[in-house]
Amino acid sequence: MAGLRESEALEKARRARAAAARLGLLTRTEKDHLLEVMAEALEANAGAILEANAQDVRAVKERGGTSAPIDRLLLDEKRVHAMAQGLREIAALPDPIGEVIEGRRLPNGLEITRVRVPLGVVGIIYESRPNVTADAAGLCLKSGNAVVLRGGSDALHSNLAIVGVLTEAAGPEGLPEGAIEIIETTDREVAAELMRADEYLDVLIPRGGGDLIRRVKRESTVPVIETGEGNCHIYVDASAPLDQAEEIVVNAKCQRPGVCNAAETLLVHREAASEFLPRLGARLSEIGVELRACEESRKLLPDARKACEADWETEFLDLILAIRVVNDVGEAIAHINRYGTKHSEAIITRDLENAQRFVREVDAAAVYVNASTRFTDGGQFGLGAEMGISTQKLHARGPMGLREMTSSKWVIMGQGQVRA
Amino acid sequence: MAGLRESEALEKARRARAAAARLGLLTRTEKDHLLEVMAEALEANAGAILEANAQDVRAVKERGGTSAPIDRLLLDEKRVHAMAQGLREIAALPDPIGEVIEGRRLPNGLEITRVRVPLGVVGIIYESRPNVTADAAGLCLKSGNAVVLRGGSDALHSNLAIVGVLTEAAGPEGLPEGAIEIIETTDREVAAELMRADEYLDVLIPRGGGDLIRRVKRESTVPVIETGEGNCHIYVDASAPLDQAEEIVVNAKCQRPGVCNAAETLLVHREAASEFLPRLGARLSEIGVELRACEESRKLLPDARKACEADWETEFLDLILAIRVVNDVGEAIAHINRYGTKHSEAIITRDLENAQRFVREVDAAAVYVNASTRFTDGGQFGLGAEMGISTQKLHARGPMGLREMTSSKWVIMGQGQVRA
Repeated sequence: MAGLRESEALEKARRARAAAARLGLLTRTEKDHLLEVMAEALEANAGAILEANAQDVRAVKERGGTSAPIDRLLLDEKRVHAMAQGLREIAALPDPIGEVIEGRRLPNGLEITRVRVPLGVVGIIYESRPNVTADAAGLCLKSGNAVVLRGGSDALHSNLAIVGVLTEAAGPEGLPEGAIEIIETTDREVAAELMRADEYLDVLIPRGGGDLIRRVKRESTVPVIETGEGNCHIYVDASAPLDQAEEIVVNAKCQRPGVCNAAETLLVHREAASEFLPRLGARLSEIGVELRACEESRKLLPDARKACEADWETEFLDLILAIRVVNDVGEAIAHINRYGTKHSEAIITRDLENAQRFVREVDAAAVYVNASTRFTDGGQFGLGAEMGISTQKLHARGPMGLREMTSSKWVIMGQGQVRA
Repeated sequence: MAGLRESEALEKARRARAAAARLGLLTRTEKDHLLEVMAEALEANAGAILEANAQDVRAVKERGGTSAPIDRLLLDEKRVHAMAQGLREIAALPDPIGEVIEGRRLPNGLEITRVRVPLGVVGIIYESRPNVTADAAGLCLKSGNAVVLRGGSDALHSNLAIVGVLTEAAGPEGLPEGAIEIIETTDREVAAELMRADEYLDVLIPRGGGDLIRRVKRESTVPVIETGEGNCHIYVDASAPLDQAEEIVVNAKCQRPGVCNAAETLLVHREAASEFLPRLGARLSEIGVELRACEESRKLLPDARKACEADWETEFLDLILAIRVVNDVGEAIAHINRYGTKHSEAIITRDLENAQRFVREVDAAAVYVNASTRFTDGGQFGLGAEMGISTQKLHARGPMGLREMTSSKWVIMGQGQVRA
């Protein structure tokens, strides 16, 4: 059995590697046509996809799953339609492949250009949302990459149904065999094999919680792009316009608390705290946000729970907000650089010097002045659909669009030049 | 003892992390001044550096070292001067930090820009050449990165002397303490600790042979950039101008056989072989190149040794050339994509279609038409000094100049925007 399982991850990675060479040569017209056909097929086969999804949902309910994971897992006609629309939006984006990024003629007459090429084979290990399956397949196809998907066991039937519909619709003449592979075995060992398949994979992208990301970083010999862990902060400076600050904190915390660009900790300048915290506290209590506050801020928020060290470190992904009073912008920056996950950080201020200092010194993918952290998103930034939000510094930082799914190649045209 | 050793790698990585925050804020004027002062100090202290180097050379000789590694290790006045010149050349390059890479105003009025920032802390594990110490320190300083160096044990005294001179000259007022750290313990375990220091390091760059690179890939939890393994090919097509082909092969193989962009295997189209191989063979024999040829080419090169499978896989880094006859450009591409290390690959041809196909289908950092592979080099490409040649697809591909030592940060300026 172990032998069989080993062959699944490696065999599929090998098939994807073989497909990658052909995928990189597809023209935009060919790729967009495939995406269109795949989108139509998702809608035409919504019934079969929903049936497979119902099977997954039933199994989770039988195991006593709670409503939040079931909601993430659940598909309906509208969500299937949204997946199809996602593929059409990817088709509408420009083709990143073949773009000439830079070029020049060298003194010896060599003409060199740097051209955008696919990464090759992308591995994606993700948790329960089945829409990631279609998004990832579409983004990889458009960027000329083969993909090996490894979704969560909860969504297995849904994911298999989606990939089945996509590959069947595209057909082996249009889509090279192996272009979209999905791993069916659900145990941990098969994921571990994928992490060690550096012979076939060019990059591995974990999409999920901190535990998954840390495991992949530890075990993978394939280069990894960390995505999506967001312990994001809002710092309300002494000079902050408090109405604006209130709207931004409420938006960043409450508009969609379960996503990575939601705020988790509020830092407030000592001078703003006495006016700001009581009014904000009242507003958040109404919405049902649990507050976990430092000693100092609890004096102004008597109903708040006492924050402990772990609260500064936690991505709650829920209606919980940690609150701390700080003495100045420097202390806010130090707190963020210590506890943050380098995702999205915001300052609310009227002070130019503090804004500039915050922007320069905070180490994060996205740094905001007077706006909600919720904007960190490929669509919002005008980059189109995204593969996730990179929180590492290598290769991609922030929303990963099609461009971040590419590499480059130097092409050098000569007339017999040799090096002296 | 293990405890002590552990603290060296982690302590130095931690010091570098602390320095990184300040290094990223240095202006170009400040950085260039430091580089200038460091260059002068190398020349002024050449005596002390050469003395330390003599100690290293003596130790290698006593252990019975051969001439090639001793030549790589050996410093003299001229080489110290070249190191100083290297730092001055880095000072003359534009500052990559702070460059606005792109930017736009979003429909909601948010103004977003992507700004170039340092990677943070760069770890470099390298083998014997001591000039890498000064180059790496200079490139990291100019790109605003702190660096943790871990050189080969053979060059330890030389490397310590160089780092001592650089940091003393810069002084703690100019150069943040921890900006250039060098690990003194020479055993393998300390390198392993550096590979796991992902809390402090943003990237780890191994510079050395394939064994070192594979070990780092396997053990590191820090993101790795693979550099420098070059099993490079020249493919001489049926229509190749043979005089040009001969000059290019001789240059790519012989001009400096010990470097990564030298050619290791020659592929020859069947139709060109009978005219080309005898004349090339005679020329290479004169120079003293050992030939390892396939069955087919041995008919034309009777003195050549029979090539075995391992010869196609080997980066000889020596006056040895593997030779194989192929049926067409497709077979050449397949051979290269199977055995190559994705470094530098060349086709010599007059045929446009074959040139285009080779450029598109060969998977390598640099693909040449009618020129020597020896040009793959940051200086040659007009990128300035380089940190190495990346052979991976993530983050950097090909020569890594200052720009490849950076990341980016999205800066978003708002006026109270929240997400709907």
